[in-house]
Amino acid sequence: MWHCQEVPASLSPVRQSGVRAHNLALVLRTVANSADPPSRAAVAAATGLTRATISTLVDDLIAGALLTEVGPAPRSGAGRPAAGLRLSPDGPAGLGLEINVDYRAACVVDLTGSVRHRLVEKGDQSLPAVAGLAHQALLRASSDGLTVAGAALAVPGLVGAGGIIRVAPNLGWQDVTVGDLVPGLPLTVDNEANLAALGELAAGDPPASFVYVSGEIGIGAGIVLGGELYRGVRGWSGEIGHIPIDPGGPPCRCGARGCLEQYAGQEAIARAAGDLTVAGTALGTALATVVNLLDIDTVVLGGIYAPLVPQLHDAIQAEISRRVLTADWSPVRLRAATLGADAAVRGAAGAVLRGVLDDPAAWLSRIQAV
Amino acid sequence: MWHCQEVPASLSPVRQSGVRAHNLALVLRTVANSADPPSRAAVAAATGLTRATISTLVDDLIAGALLTEVGPAPRSGAGRPAAGLRLSPDGPAGLGLEINVDYRAACVVDLTGSVRHRLVEKGDQSLPAVAGLAHQALLRASSDGLTVAGAALAVPGLVGAGGIIRVAPNLGWQDVTVGDLVPGLPLTVDNEANLAALGELAAGDPPASFVYVSGEIGIGAGIVLGGELYRGVRGWSGEIGHIPIDPGGPPCRCGARGCLEQYAGQEAIARAAGDLTVAGTALGTALATVVNLLDIDTVVLGGIYAPLVPQLHDAIQAEISRRVLTADWSPVRLRAATLGADAAVRGAAGAVLRGVLDDPAAWLSRIQAV
Repeated sequence: MWHCQEVPASLSPVRQSGVRAHNLALVLRTVANSADPPSRAAVAAATGLTRATISTLVDDLIAGALLTEVGPAPRSGAGRPAAGLRLSPDGPAGLGLEINVDYRAACVVDLTGSVRHRLVEKGDQSLPAVAGLAHQALLRASSDGLTVAGAALAVPGLVGAGGIIRVAPNLGWQDVTVGDLVPGLPLTVDNEANLAALGELAAGDPPASFVYVSGEIGIGAGIVLGGELYRGVRGWSGEIGHIPIDPGGPPCRCGARGCLEQYAGQEAIARAAGDLTVAGTALGTALATVVNLLDIDTVVLGGIYAPLVPQLHDAIQAEISRRVLTADWSPVRLRAATLGADAAVRGAAGAVLRGVLDDPAAWLSRIQAV
Repeated sequence: MWHCQEVPASLSPVRQSGVRAHNLALVLRTVANSADPPSRAAVAAATGLTRATISTLVDDLIAGALLTEVGPAPRSGAGRPAAGLRLSPDGPAGLGLEINVDYRAACVVDLTGSVRHRLVEKGDQSLPAVAGLAHQALLRASSDGLTVAGAALAVPGLVGAGGIIRVAPNLGWQDVTVGDLVPGLPLTVDNEANLAALGELAAGDPPASFVYVSGEIGIGAGIVLGGELYRGVRGWSGEIGHIPIDPGGPPCRCGARGCLEQYAGQEAIARAAGDLTVAGTALGTALATVVNLLDIDTVVLGGIYAPLVPQLHDAIQAEISRRVLTADWSPVRLRAATLGADAAVRGAAGAVLRGVLDDPAAWLSRIQAV
């Protein structure tokens, strides 16, 4: 394995700011991925950077409230025990926002992944109503002494370039510009299944590649490949709800017939009055296609499906066994989403924090400029 | 953008061999990706490495027959015109091999991408017959003064760890170990649609993300995302042939009913006697699912489909327009594969050469050790 720090001194040019930004991220990620709080010496060993360099970087990260030091644990060996480093719960926080068909939600998550505040309201799904909820969440974060680094909004629809919501059929939205929803704060807009998949990736300990299926009025999927969300060429991947199940099936609002949504969407599940065989069979048929195409061995069922996994499991697995060519060698695991209905809004907050973890130098510049 | 050469001198440890390997690959890739043969100075500018470092690396690459110098073009500006660098046609070559249902093939491709030899034989599809064809191809490469760096074998089936062919249904193979097919030469085994997609990527100038559909007795797909083949968790991605088209359709050899292969496989196409509407509609239905899931905007039709694109086009596009949610904003392009039936065997040879381009240091060590 080739490491960047192995580049010999004779090479030029040397641009210190680029190196510092990279190394700050390297140190922060090393601490974030450690099971126990590592010492500065352990971070030096893990990164290959010198102790002196590590100390400067760690001091900057502590000053920016990204890292904090915890007292040394008692130990039996010789020598002075070293303080451990961990992510700070008092620094940047992420604001997750969600608009869905029957609720809107906000949550504030700190850098350690703890949910500090969570607000859910039924009723008014307008953008001003979401802005109001965001404002309440920001006030609470501020009273905790947290600095919100940014916001991300989860929507049940297709999001185009510049965060324009091209279509959110179950909200009746088309070409909606979200605009300055949270004044003064960077905002991204993303599909709810994508953000829910990121939420599950952070909280649910799934394998590096999985498909998250979000059951709502519509059905979406977030595809995670090798630990990264796969967004597609234009950001519109995962439209699983319109996989055709039966060409002679009921008409779908997309214009085609017999789409998965007609058999396993929230309305079909409600009509089924507890008999979920048809929904499970349809989901299994669609998931067999996903597995045959992507060769993924784990499916996470979220949204309305999460609590229904016991009733859906057998019918889904029967179709997967029947239709997935490689099922004999490698079974496909089905699991319920860890975060339930909170997955998308938690994933939205997490997406903001991931931005801070990936580029702590930008965060440090921002708070110094304030 | 952060460049690795920006790391300051104070960082340690410095491991020269790792740096050299990386920089050899960087220089080789820079030359390979240049439209015109670049001078050493141009390579230095593009990579950020010093002129002295570039000269050492280029000399090593020329000595290993990976690069060659071409005479300077006349130019009107001041100063001595510089010689240009390009990939050498006289160095390492890749041996591509293919076993398919009604033929076996071999080809020798040099580092510039030129096909130096191409052998196709009908009939005996046994491994010894392929070994015989490989031997003929090696003799021809040797008489050209080429050194074959390795071989890759394309098979119409699922390939497991260690190159074991788990199942190739249309060859009637199950759990076949290929073994030492070409004595003394590194050999990899891969699915034919995967290798054909790589062949198209190298020769056909497609966008960075596309799906290659290989129509044979069975139907497979090679998925290329961001310029890289997406293989899946276990290497079994792209099994498009068993996407269900109609749950009440004809039984498929996979055990399910109404799979794509029953409507658009080679036998169905032959039975259709020129009326390809059903096949096109079924392909369009399956491809709509692929596009809805992966958000890919280009489909390359290969194998038996390549010459049939004019007849298949309208029926496929009609289903895509009807079923792909984003088709209104972003049309899906259909194109015929550039390489036709040669795609897989060409892609196999290219996969060998890609290995050399990615790690020229390993190649240089190998030829020095001989």
